[in-house]
Amino acid sequence: MDKSKTRILKGFRDFLPEKMYIRNRVISILREVFESFGFSELATPTLEYQEVLLGKYGEEAEKLMYLFKDQGERGVGLKYDLTVPLSRVMADYPNLPIPFKRYQIQPIFRAEKPQKGRYREVYQCDVDTIGSSSNVADAEILAIISTCLNKLNFTDYKIRLNSRKVLFNLIEKAGIKADKSQTILRSIDKLDKKNQSEVEKELADKGLSKETITKLFANLKSAEMDDDLKEIISLANKMGAKNIEFDPILVRGLDYYTGSIFETVVKKPKIGSITGGGRFDNLIEKLGGPDLPAVGTTIGLDRICDCIEELNLWPNIASSPTKVLVTVFSKALFSNSLDLAKILRNKGINCELYPSLEKLDKQLKYADKKGIPWVIIIGSDEAEKEVVTLKNLEAKSQDTMKLEKAIDIIKAS
Amino acid sequence: MDKSKTRILKGFRDFLPEKMYIRNRVISILREVFESFGFSELATPTLEYQEVLLGKYGEEAEKLMYLFKDQGERGVGLKYDLTVPLSRVMADYPNLPIPFKRYQIQPIFRAEKPQKGRYREVYQCDVDTIGSSSNVADAEILAIISTCLNKLNFTDYKIRLNSRKVLFNLIEKAGIKADKSQTILRSIDKLDKKNQSEVEKELADKGLSKETITKLFANLKSAEMDDDLKEIISLANKMGAKNIEFDPILVRGLDYYTGSIFETVVKKPKIGSITGGGRFDNLIEKLGGPDLPAVGTTIGLDRICDCIEELNLWPNIASSPTKVLVTVFSKALFSNSLDLAKILRNKGINCELYPSLEKLDKQLKYADKKGIPWVIIIGSDEAEKEVVTLKNLEAKSQDTMKLEKAIDIIKAS
Repeated sequence: MDKSKTRILKGFRDFLPEKMYIRNRVISILREVFESFGFSELATPTLEYQEVLLGKYGEEAEKLMYLFKDQGERGVGLKYDLTVPLSRVMADYPNLPIPFKRYQIQPIFRAEKPQKGRYREVYQCDVDTIGSSSNVADAEILAIISTCLNKLNFTDYKIRLNSRKVLFNLIEKAGIKADKSQTILRSIDKLDKKNQSEVEKELADKGLSKETITKLFANLKSAEMDDDLKEIISLANKMGAKNIEFDPILVRGLDYYTGSIFETVVKKPKIGSITGGGRFDNLIEKLGGPDLPAVGTTIGLDRICDCIEELNLWPNIASSPTKVLVTVFSKALFSNSLDLAKILRNKGINCELYPSLEKLDKQLKYADKKGIPWVIIIGSDEAEKEVVTLKNLEAKSQDTMKLEKAIDIIKAS
Repeated sequence: MDKSKTRILKGFRDFLPEKMYIRNRVISILREVFESFGFSELATPTLEYQEVLLGKYGEEAEKLMYLFKDQGERGVGLKYDLTVPLSRVMADYPNLPIPFKRYQIQPIFRAEKPQKGRYREVYQCDVDTIGSSSNVADAEILAIISTCLNKLNFTDYKIRLNSRKVLFNLIEKAGIKADKSQTILRSIDKLDKKNQSEVEKELADKGLSKETITKLFANLKSAEMDDDLKEIISLANKMGAKNIEFDPILVRGLDYYTGSIFETVVKKPKIGSITGGGRFDNLIEKLGGPDLPAVGTTIGLDRICDCIEELNLWPNIASSPTKVLVTVFSKALFSNSLDLAKILRNKGINCELYPSLEKLDKQLKYADKKGIPWVIIIGSDEAEKEVVTLKNLEAKSQDTMKLEKAIDIIKAS
């Protein structure tokens, strides 16, 4: 093969070990929180039938889907989200325990125009409760979001909370007919990015009178939570949630929400929302599943990983899971190094044995390049005196000591 | 959408929570072992350019690949293995630390005829060292395999070890020309499934004389390890490996191995090998990567999960990560249940709060169906006396006690 042709596909990413290490830590924290609230993991295939995929989004999204014919001439496509497969699962396995509390962390595919921060394969992380219309279920999702973010070291975040019912109500009170409410919502949604007069103009273009528009904005300003939202926020706070704020201009783009809606924003970096969700009581059935209420959220794994890096939320994280490189000094001393590596491993310390006899300098450079913080050297002096030399690459310090002491230092680091 | 059309694609699988729970435990044990030996995780895209995918296998495998044109008319395809993307990564990032010790756990896709135990999307788990020709690297892979299996509770396994060099040598000593050795190897490979006379016939059909065939089998019977294999086995054992056995009739199907070859077999269930690998010093370059020696193994995640179930290797594993269901007794006592769930969670116990007021019996059935072992009930009596009722669903026993005691019992279970 022509070497110059070896390359990654446009719009896709490799996760090299350093990135992967952070992602794995994030995922393991998310899993821990989800499971602490009684959610279990589901995984579904990468490929689905086209008719299953297209059920939710219709032709508009078709352009963004990876659709093709397989060897059996079946129309298939790559997962476009995690809600469609969830609905299929709810239909295919009618004996699942209800409420079905599941989380799912898998890649989804969108043939978007590649641009900075936009990828065609994205790891999505969804957590949903299917089959409960209780406000407890909504509150739990909010508590999970907040607990995850707290455990990930986020402090400066805000969970915006609103309800489609509150929105529909204030639209109705402004004297707007119900059949116009979705298009009005889409305009209100733009208040996040446009100023009020721009949105007013858009509403006027949609046929609202000046008076109605004034009334609508007055209603938005004086909007209050309904009883459901009050209960949801109070339950979520009791479950340990923080930073939830009622925000009457929050709309969330997708038409299918029916009750609470929520998203999490951070001041920095300028990255949009890092979670987004709400209650979608009709969607599972619409997608071919059973008629069950549902509430849940997507957690933006990629954006969260970006935030952790940009905000330096994990200042002490290593760039490698390996804690120690055990160097090889000479052929005669090789078995000392090998035994030592085994002892460290048995003590629960991730350690790497340099696999061949090379100049010590080369071995140290390798550790440095890989981001391994500690190096242990056993030369002839050390072997004779039954000690080791422990080197910290970042501090550029080293000391000779008994192995037990070295183990204590490494474990404490 | 027509409900009857909602269905999973042929040859693909959903992993429902119970299966996923076991898989996640297996993966986390594998990760732990890989990282204890200094390996880091890599993830590559699901899609690659066709020319990258076809580099290794050529037209024969093309039939089994999911190949299609994307929206930009690029010829793309789904990952067919993890070695091709690894080679691309080695070429695309020339500054990776060498040796590059990586593991990768991702789905690969093969458009095989669906049949029992054969799926079109399979999670593959590879661990490889790129850039070291030292026997230490081979030994490490063997030690990793053995350590993983031990930690997964396997006891009755055998790691068959051989070397292409040993095989080529005994073929040459039988007087067979080097250009015939690959086809001869493919016949020897069948000794696992066919009896000797069938293989002898096949070799005769390939043009070997009776005398040569006799010599070949005599050489196979008297074959001994070369110095490399002896060193590899001794190093691996020092690293803690068990159950490695030299086996001169082990061939491993793939042409690209150049040195050591190995696979793990279990007596029961009849499932084929659960790991397979070896040294492949020319492959990375052949696939468009740099000229680097390599050694590694695939670990059959699906087969391992099947074995754990069939051999009942984890007799005490729960079917759900949730340890406790906190029931809801009445509206008045709801906040007691809510507080209790929070306390349990803070103590590190995965617990689920039933989200609505239903008959206790319904709540218990839910716990039972989901495989939650413990249920806590706070009724009015319990609330008044500041105690809880702890129920074990499997033992069908229950007892009323202080919360602290209940926590101790649950934690100890």
